Formats: sequence, structure tokens, C-alpha cells
Amino acid sequence: MKSLAIPGLPTPADLKAAAGRIAKFIHRTPVMTSTTLNEITGAEVFLKCENFQRIGAFKIRGALNTMFRMPREELFHGVATHSSGNHAQAVALAARLLQVKAYIVMPGNTSVVKADAVRGYGAEVTFCEATLQARETICHAIMQKTGAVFIPPYDHWDIIAGAGTAAMELLEDAGGLEIVLAPVGGGGLLSGTALAFSYFHPATVIIGAEPKGADDAARSLASGKRVESHLPQTIADGLLTTLGEKNFSVIRRLVTDIVTVDESSIVHAMRWVWERMKIVIEPSSAVPVAVLLDGKINSRKKRIGVIISGGNVDMYRLPWLKR
Amino acid sequence: MKSLAIPGLPTPADLKAAAGRIAKFIHRTPVMTSTTLNEITGAEVFLKCENFQRIGAFKIRGALNTMFRMPREELFHGVATHSSGNHAQAVALAARLLQVKAYIVMPGNTSVVKADAVRGYGAEVTFCEATLQARETICHAIMQKTGAVFIPPYDHWDIIAGAGTAAMELLEDAGGLEIVLAPVGGGGLLSGTALAFSYFHPATVIIGAEPKGADDAARSLASGKRVESHLPQTIADGLLTTLGEKNFSVIRRLVTDIVTVDESSIVHAMRWVWERMKIVIEPSSAVPVAVLLDGKINSRKKRIGVIISGGNVDMYRLPWLKR
Repeated sequence: MKSLAIPGLPTPADLKAAAGRIAKFIHRTPVMTSTTLNEITGAEVFLKCENFQRIGAFKIRGALNTMFRMPREELFHGVATHSSGNHAQAVALAARLLQVKAYIVMPGNTSVVKADAVRGYGAEVTFCEATLQARETICHAIMQKTGAVFIPPYDHWDIIAGAGTAAMELLEDAGGLEIVLAPVGGGGLLSGTALAFSYFHPATVIIGAEPKGADDAARSLASGKRVESHLPQTIADGLLTTLGEKNFSVIRRLVTDIVTVDESSIVHAMRWVWERMKIVIEPSSAVPVAVLLDGKINSRKKRIGVIISGGNVDMYRLPWLKR
Repeated sequence: MKSLAIPGLPTPADLKAAAGRIAKFIHRTPVMTSTTLNEITGAEVFLKCENFQRIGAFKIRGALNTMFRMPREELFHGVATHSSGNHAQAVALAARLLQVKAYIVMPGNTSVVKADAVRGYGAEVTFCEATLQARETICHAIMQKTGAVFIPPYDHWDIIAGAGTAAMELLEDAGGLEIVLAPVGGGGLLSGTALAFSYFHPATVIIGAEPKGADDAARSLASGKRVESHLPQTIADGLLTTLGEKNFSVIRRLVTDIVTVDESSIVHAMRWVWERMKIVIEPSSAVPVAVLLDGKINSRKKRIGVIISGGNVDMYRLPWLKR
């Protein structure tokens, strides 16, 4: 394969090293199939179930890989991040596994369940206003005071390499796939997936799946220029973030298309998977399933992989039930 | 092992034959574990996930085994049953697989989703009043008219042998277990499980799990005499049935104890499994999990199997949400 000429891009050896580095700290998640889903799509669909991953999402992969790659002295004063979601739990658990302190800034409107999960891993949680600016300011102040090092959520090569290890496992377990779908928010999962397949099974077509209400990645790919700000609105709370720079540099070269779906399709796909496949997936993971159920891509006779990013859901706020 | 001296009781060879007979028509369901569940219980817990079974529950095993054992001419005019739940789907799918006609009587208050699932397998659904008497009368009339043969839900040796095949797979996949828990309603699953372990791993202690509000099996076991009528009240809708005769004859000899749990524990256990293990289980399956989470048995240092009977749930009526 021709070099992508992206400075700092993880190599095939880097991805393999990431997989080896984190293997004994994470679950080897199963690849699941559904006769009914195959009948509906006319395809053979393989779901890589990162909802069964530790912390309930793929995010632990990147957090662990990043921290393991840091020199021990950099971690000496602990790690910090701000997140309302899976990244918070990922950093908290990774820090516990490496026996370093974790400081997590969470918006005040975070659900108690999520905050308790983060605290349960021994992290120190600081609440702040629910704006990006407040989160960044408080996080920065904590880092200044404690000397903790920042663990970014997606726009970082080690995070991307870590995320790519899920795709490597999917490839090992499902064999050759014609198409792989992954949701896209900040782009950590999609860029990692695309990178892994470009190295280890380049024939696979990689397609991103994005809510219409948060379609910055689709617009970025279409225009060739990263959309840097937008006002996303979607129930897929994991996909509200804006596409990262490094992530886009990979996605624009390796992702064939980004397909968008509307909110009602996401809700339907989520409920469908719960009801029919008996697994709990979060709204973000329902986005690529919605692409298939809606027939947004021609799936007939194809072997299709889907990265199910996670399964962290507030059981009291299910999107198909009126609030 | 000493003979149980129960006329008609399936032998070890019968159970093995049942397993072989149905194997290629059903899923080999996974055995799942949870680090957190192990931490809470101090045990090593293995969930045999029949929620991932075809029709979403173990019931397909008994229905298939029973129909396969019938002489072809008996099935010539089709099969009939009455059920509001998983047995209806099981008979409908088994009939489709054997290419015979199925007549299913369902109470008029059955959810559309369930009725549609049964119709989806090609069965003819007749609605009736929501009383046992109405169900039996209508079912009998249909059998008279069509010549269809009745497929009982649990009080039948072939149904029991079929149900026992799930336990055989659990034993194969999880190895020796000190304790196995199964929910008990009519007793098909519990008697089949107990029978399978008595033949293939008799050292295992078998414990039934029952809602306090439907504790006829617990009272029957305690008194040595089958409680024949009661007014059950529980959200575990699969466990409303009264313990069957054949089922009790096995249970009283082979089941060590039946432990009861209250409704709030069932609801909590159900939500806990959804939230933490990311799998959808029905209230009936939450009953044995509640036994463990409530510490109703001393689970420390034990290897414990749990039969998760099914995952068919109305997503619009979740028991932890106020109606």
C-alpha cells in the first residue's frame, strides 16, 4: 500500500503493538449475528459488540493504549480529562489499572449513574457548567494545580491506534468483509477502523454512519475541508463531538463515504436491536444499524461488519418512550 | 445413580437423543460472565443465555423435541396450543420448521408484538377471553374442527427432555458447577435442568428461583404435596403457571431447594443485568439473578450456573418505569 504521508500516523506495527499492549486488560468482545437482520438486509452482518467491553464501550482501548505509551514519569502526577460520557469512564478505569490518579471533569447535568461509575473506578470527579469552555477551564486549572497530564478523547494517534484494535479483532473473527460500518462523532473509532482495515484487509470498503442532526463529518468528507464548528442535535449523545484533525486526515483518505440517518431511524434501530437481538446498545451504536435497516446502502449479498461502539444507556430515559 | 422409579421419565439416552434431534434447528447459545457479578457474589457465575435462542427463549427446545418425537401422521392435521407467551412462538416456529399447520389461541390482551411474531411464523392466531377456561375451550374447539394435536407447554416428558438440553450445553461449556439456578413456573425448565444434571453431573446442587407472589412450587416442595391452585401475582409473566405433575415428580426428588424473591428484587435484578451486562432478559430470567444479588444463597467461592430462560420483553412496558 502507498504511504499516506501523514506525519505521526500509526504504522501496521504500531497497531499490532497496541493490540498486544492492551489485550490482557480488556475483553475480547464477541461478534454477533442475527438471522432476521440478515434476512432484512439480504447481507451477512457481523456485529463487533464493544457494548460488552469493559466500561461498556470501545473507549477503554484508546485510553489504555495512550497511557501505556506515556513515559511513567509523565503519569506520575496523574491523568485528567473532561467528558460526560464513555471517555470519562475509560480514563478512570485505565488510570486504576495503571495505578495512577485520575481527575475527571464532568458537566453538572451528568446522570448520577455515570458519575458514580467514574467514582467507582477511584477517580476524583469535579462538576462544572455544561459548556465546553467551562469544562476546559476547570480541567486546565486542575492540571495546573496537580501536574496531571491530559488524556484527549479522540484527536490523538495513540487513541486512534487503540480504537483500531476492535477492527483488528473483528477481521480476525469474521474473516474477509466487503463493507465495514462505524459511527462517527469525533472520529476516533472511524479513523482507527479505517486505518486497521487499510493495513490488514485493504479491500474492505469503510463507511461512516452519522446522525443527520450532527453531520459535520459527512459535510467535511463531501467538501474535503473539516467543518470545525456546528450545532449538533441528536439523541446519539456519543456523536455530538466535532470531527478531530488527525481523525479527518485519515478519514478523508480511507473512508469511502459517510451516510447520514435521521433521528426516528436511530430510535427505531436501537429498539429493534434490543427487542430482536436482546442486546443493549447505546444510540450512537444504533446509527450504523439504522443505515442498514433503512437500506441506505446496497447491502445485498455482502458480508458486512458493524462496530457496535457501546451500550451505556440511562434505563430511565429510553428514546422510544415519551418523557 | 438409583432409579427414580417415575414411569415414563426420560433416560440419559433420551436426553442425548433430544439434544441431537434439535441441534441443527436451534442456536448454540453463549454462556456469559460478568466481572462485577462475580465481585458482588464472591462466586464465579455462568449465565446460559437462552435469551439469544430462536424465538428469544428456551421454549423452542421442548416444542421441537415433542413434535419431532410424534409420529408423522399425528401431525398431519397440524398442531394447536394456547399461550400468551413464549410457548406460542415456540409451537409456531417448530410447526413451520416441520412444515405443519399451527393453530395458536391467544388471550385478547396479548400485545400486538407477540401476536405478530406468532403470525410471522405462519401460525393461525385465534383470540379469546383472557381466562384459562376460555383458552382451553377455544383451543379444544379448534382441535375438534381441524384434527390438530395439542402441544402442551410443560407437563410432558418430551417437553421436559427438550428443556433439559440447555443444561447439557451449559455443563459442556462451563464445566463442573457446584450450584445451578433456574426459574420455576410450570416447572418445565427446572425439571429438565435437574434431570440433565442428575444424569450428567449429579454433584451439582439444583435450586429453583421463584417470585414470592407466585410461590406454589416453593410451597409444593416444602410440603411434599403439589399446590394445585393459587392466585399468582408477579411481573414475571412467564412464571404465572402452576407447577405441573410430571415436573413436580422430578423436582421433589432432584431439586434441593426453591428460593423466593420479592418483586422489587426482580425488577432491580432485571435492570441491573440490562445496565451492567448489556443483555436484555425478561422478568422471569431476572428471578434467579435476584436470588444471587440479594444474597439469598451463600454463593461464596462457588461456581454457579444460571439458566437465563428468555429475553422477550415489551419495550414500552418496562417494570422499572412508572406506567
